[in-house]
Order: sequence, then C-alpha cells, then structure tokens
Amino acid sequence: MQNMELKAETIRVVGPCDIWSFPLKMKERHPLEYVRQFPHLRCRNNTLGSLLRIRSEATAAIHSFFQDNGYVHIHTPIITSNDCEGAGDLFQIETSNEARESAEKTHFFNVPAFLTVSGQLHLEVMSGAFTHVFTFGPTFRAENSQSRRHLAEFYMVEAELSFTESLQDIMQVMEDLFKTATSTVLSKCPRDVELFHKYMAPAQKVGTDAEEQICDLVENLLSHLLEEISYSEAVEILKRASQTFTFKPEWGCDLQTEHEKYLVKHCGEVPVFVINYPYDLKPFYMRDNEDGPQHTVAAVDLLVPGVGELCGGSLREERLPFLESRLQRLGLTDAYQWYLDLRKFGSVPHGGFGMGFERYLQYILGVDNIKDVIPFPRFSHSCLL
Amino acid sequence: MQNMELKAETIRVVGPCDIWSFPLKMKERHPLEYVRQFPHLRCRNNTLGSLLRIRSEATAAIHSFFQDNGYVHIHTPIITSNDCEGAGDLFQIETSNEARESAEKTHFFNVPAFLTVSGQLHLEVMSGAFTHVFTFGPTFRAENSQSRRHLAEFYMVEAELSFTESLQDIMQVMEDLFKTATSTVLSKCPRDVELFHKYMAPAQKVGTDAEEQICDLVENLLSHLLEEISYSEAVEILKRASQTFTFKPEWGCDLQTEHEKYLVKHCGEVPVFVINYPYDLKPFYMRDNEDGPQHTVAAVDLLVPGVGELCGGSLREERLPFLESRLQRLGLTDAYQWYLDLRKFGSVPHGGFGMGFERYLQYILGVDNIKDVIPFPRFSHSCLL
Repeated sequence: MQNMELKAETIRVVGPCDIWSFPLKMKERHPLEYVRQFPHLRCRNNTLGSLLRIRSEATAAIHSFFQDNGYVHIHTPIITSNDCEGAGDLFQIETSNEARESAEKTHFFNVPAFLTVSGQLHLEVMSGAFTHVFTFGPTFRAENSQSRRHLAEFYMVEAELSFTESLQDIMQVMEDLFKTATSTVLSKCPRDVELFHKYMAPAQKVGTDAEEQICDLVENLLSHLLEEISYSEAVEILKRASQTFTFKPEWGCDLQTEHEKYLVKHCGEVPVFVINYPYDLKPFYMRDNEDGPQHTVAAVDLLVPGVGELCGGSLREERLPFLESRLQRLGLTDAYQWYLDLRKFGSVPHGGFGMGFERYLQYILGVDNIKDVIPFPRFSHSCLL
Repeated sequence: MQNMELKAETIRVVGPCDIWSFPLKMKERHPLEYVRQFPHLRCRNNTLGSLLRIRSEATAAIHSFFQDNGYVHIHTPIITSNDCEGAGDLFQIETSNEARESAEKTHFFNVPAFLTVSGQLHLEVMSGAFTHVFTFGPTFRAENSQSRRHLAEFYMVEAELSFTESLQDIMQVMEDLFKTATSTVLSKCPRDVELFHKYMAPAQKVGTDAEEQICDLVENLLSHLLEEISYSEAVEILKRASQTFTFKPEWGCDLQTEHEKYLVKHCGEVPVFVINYPYDLKPFYMRDNEDGPQHTVAAVDLLVPGVGELCGGSLREERLPFLESRLQRLGLTDAYQWYLDLRKFGSVPHGGFGMGFERYLQYILGVDNIKDVIPFPRFSHSCLL
C-alpha cells in the first residue's frame, strides 16, 4: 500500500545510525517480546509508534468526553496515607535517605505513606462539591505477577456522579465513555488501528480491506454494549455449564477469570454487565441493597471478550448509620472518620466507576500483553530506565 | 451581586448537615490556612471550589493546546530506576512488606526504584520517534521544606521538540502555551477567576468591575511576555543594583530568589526569559554553546512576578562526542548508556521545557501559597487522607 512517492533532490543526514548495531531491523517484523527489551528504542518500531499515537488520541478523547459532559477534572493524590484498601499489595514511600538508614523510625510525612491504588475515595470527597467529577492518572499495585494482565504502574479513568440512585446511570456513563472514546480513536487514527487489527489480532473477525475492517470493528465493539445479568444469574449460568471449572461456581464466591470468560462467551462474545454482588465480597463503601437471604450490594463489573474486567463501579453507601455499623464491624471507624464526615455533613446519593486504561487499549486493539500498550511498563523484577 | 432569585415551592433535605459541628461557616470568609486543615471538606468552600474549576479548565486547555499543535501525549513513568538527577531529594519505593522487613535486601523491581522528578529524559526517548511530544503528570521532590513555594507532589507540563536548533523555538512554545491556556481559563470561568483577583490578590492592579478586571488581567499577563536577557546581562544588572543581596551576584553562581525578584522588578514586573546559563551550573544534557571564556549552555528560564521560575528549558546536547565526554567526566557513562544510544542511532537536534502547573496557577490567580492550588497538598510532615 503506497499512495505517494518521494522524489528527493538532495538528502541531508541529520544524525547517522549504525544499522548493524541498531537492534530494530528495517522491514523486519520483530516479535513484541523482542522489542520490549529496548524501552528507549522501541517507540521507533512501527507497532509501538502506532500504539503511542492511539494512546495519545484515546487520552485526549477521554478528557474531552468528560469535559463535554460537565465533569470537573480532579488530580487525586498519588501519595496517600490511606493504607486500608488492598493492604499487602501496596508500595510504600520513603525518602532515599530513610531507605538507606532503615533504623530511623521517622517518616518524611510523619505517617507511613503509600502509592495510591485508586482515586475513588478522594473523588468522593469532591462529589460533595461538584455534581460530576473525574480523574485520569496513574495507580499502583505491588502484585508479584509477571502475567500478561498485570502491571505495577497503570492508568485508571475514574468518575463519580452525585445525585445518582441507580446503577443504570453508572452503566450508561461507562457505555457512553467507551463508545465516544472508541469512535474518536477510530476516526482519528484509522491506519494505526488497522495495523493492530491486521497483524496483532488476526483472530478477530475482520474484513478484507482497511475501511471494511474499521466498519466491522465499530460494529462489533460499539453496537452491542447491552448485555446485563445479575451476579446471581451469572452463578446459575455457570452452574448449568457443561464445562468443568477449576474453581467450582458457588453463590458468595468471587468470579474467577475462567468464569468471566465463560459468561462473555455465553452471552455471544460481547461486553456484559454483571450487577449486584454479594455483600460480603465487596468493600465497605458499596451501597447495601438490603435484600436477602442472598445479601447483595449495588455493584457492577463490565466484562469484555479477551480482557475480562474492564470497568468496575458501584453506588456508594451514602447513609451514615449503614456506613458506621459496617466500618465498626471491620474495625475501621477511626481510619475512616473523615469518610464518615462526608456523610455527616450533607450527604447525597452518589456512585461511580473506574476503567483500566491499558485494558481498554488491549481490548480495542486486540493486544494480548498489557506490557505492549504502555510506553514504559513496570512490573515485578522490571523497571527499565 | 445577585442576578437571580429562587422561588421554591417545596424543599427536600437530601442529606442533613449539623451546621454547629460543620467547620465551614456560611457567609464567613475563612482564611485559607484554616480551611487547609479540612482536606475532605475544603472543596465545599467557595475559594477552593473556584480553584478546582479553574484547575480543571486549565488542565483541559493545556491538553488541547498540545493536541491542536500536533503533539503526541506520552505517559512518562512515575516509578523510575533513574536516580542520578537530584540524588538526595528522591522518594524511594518499596513494597509495604519490604518496608516492614527492612533486613531484606531484594527489591520488588530488582533495582532501587524512585518517584520521578521529571519526565524529560523519557520524553527525549520519544522525540526519536515523534516530532513533538508532551507529558502532563505528577512529579515528586522529597524536599524538607514547608515553604509556600514547595510541594512533595506537584504537576509538571513538559514538552520536547525535535528538529529544533534555537532556544527561541522553545521560548515561543512556552509563550504560546501560557497565552492560550490563560485565555481559555479566563473565557471559561471568568467568575471564578474574578473571585481570586478580588479577594486573594488585592495587590494586583484591577479594575472596578468584573469585566474590567478580566480585561486588565488579560492585558497584564498576556501582552508582555517579551523580555529576554542573557544570564551574563542578568549578572551585570544585579551587580549594578543599589540593593544589597544576601547572596552576592557573581558570574557562575546560581540566581537566588532575591535575584530573580530583582530582575523581574527591573524589567517592569513582567515575565522575563533568562537565557544561556554557565555550563558548570547546569545538567549534563544541556547543549554546549561552545563560547568562552564564560562558557555557557543553551538553557532558558522564564521568571514571572510573585512566583519566580515558572518554566525551565534547554536545547539538548544531541552530539554524541560532546555528550560522551561530559558523561565520562561526571562518571555517569554506565548509567546513561541508553541515553547515549539515543544519539548513536539517528540523533536529531531537539529541545524542550517544563512548566510547574501549580506555579502557573499561583501566578495567574495571585495565590500566595502553593498548598492552596492543589486538591490534596503533600509536603514534609503532612499527607492528610
């Protein structure tokens, strides 16, 4: 495919390159694992070049989506003293001097400080002042995993909506965000997206030429975001499955990757919302559905083909007595006094969600390994440059 | 000023608030130091509410400016193994388990890892693949300072331009960015800006009504970004000054805050570019001007009234032999092998700059303390929430 020709009259070498020692060869299609070894040069590779342009357009599209819909952007903090969520998987921060002299017992911030795992609680602070808020920044997990699905540093898009009393409102924003961002990316860099669909995700049903591919993609990804099942229905579907699972599906247990895959397949390889999860599985801030005997909270996960959980959200418990008694049972009352204050001083029903940005890119581009959709991947045993 | 009236037919209390224990009183103008004690409630205060709306618009405007000018947005890494710049003032990262069992000698990433102090070197990686790149994210400094000018976590806008051989190109982008972002903020939230100019920065020359104030502001800030002096001229100006400085001005020494203030005043309280700093004062990556006997590099700082240094930039040393010999003299050759590779494999003349986002907000709004222009300030001895 070559729709222009260059006729040079002179050529000036701006900076010479020794092609024998340069690790990326011209006209050679290097495996992504190979180029990953050269974090300082891999952006000069076609695939990574395309990825980074797409990532940039997607970033802009996400900012515009929220901006256009009246959301206030908040820089939620990266360093936080809030350590209760996630516990073991946190990164802790010290000054490099403290790290060297580990006997020292003082902290730079007076208290132990950690890298954020989510901006949600800080966004909830803001939803006491603004109707709609969002954040889009780095989050961290010290997970000792080299899997194709995990990074130690990754990006999350998070939004919080005040005056919302139904999960459907949250799901609508997830869907709108997904569709708007994806349409923008497809229209802004069709050639870059094409490269991925041609070479990276050959398993995806694609047409024969670029334009047709894009059309199929739009149709596949954008027109079907409508399946919705409850957690309880999901468990019933899994129980009826002829397939044998490593983890036996049982009401009250977390959905495993194998379960998520089956559910997506069962629904026809389209994105699926799963709603209303068991009360005892979910964090303290999710809103009690007050149902029973199978006691649930108003939570929602969006599962997508190939990637699994793309978004997770919930209505938040805005009722002070419910929150107080739950925190007390968990022994967290003191740590979350400030969070209780948000309910004490003029609370409103609200809810929100987070979307993993790298998982989003993996999904729309069909990229298998999450390390290939971020400029400088950080994971256990690896922090190059 | 009240240009509408509400005539309510019914009132529904969504969430009650005990006004006696609520720390922010209606119709009372609390000092900013007071509201700073309540990071979870202060966004409900008028001033912080306005600030956060302005911050959100400024964020969007900066993204749009670069997007509209063909820049690719790059998420430069937050965690980095690059520890050479800034040395003592770094935050180091460990998993919370490692922090507890400090005897352990292994690292999660195998190598010591730090919070980034700048995305520049990673952006330079990208300028080998894209003509224009930018990043806008959190950066960190473990400075043991409680001053009104420093935060441990703050935001930087950084841009890198390939095929640039003149500092003037960099200065032009700084100026355009500043003017575009500021015009957008002024047109998007005039009432919020007005609040600051009325109550926070009474020293600034402002008109008598809202519209006039905004006009003055635009004029003051946007029409004068043109002063430019060399470092050597700056030192001469300082030497001729009748004022006595704590630090005696001398060619080869860093400009101190008192010097910066004097220079801005000397030029008529307008923003001033200072260019061509002493070679020995500046980091290894800045481009050698090959002048002498007063040996300089192609660096530029933008000084502004009230705030001091708002932007800093330079041409980068793209010539392999110059860079090699400089790194060798500094004993950094091994650590920066990857950086030398960028020059070895097809280098181009390039340069860039960084702008402190909080300082930008302080400047356009006339806010004295940097802690009041960020939602959750982090500084030594303080990391609330």
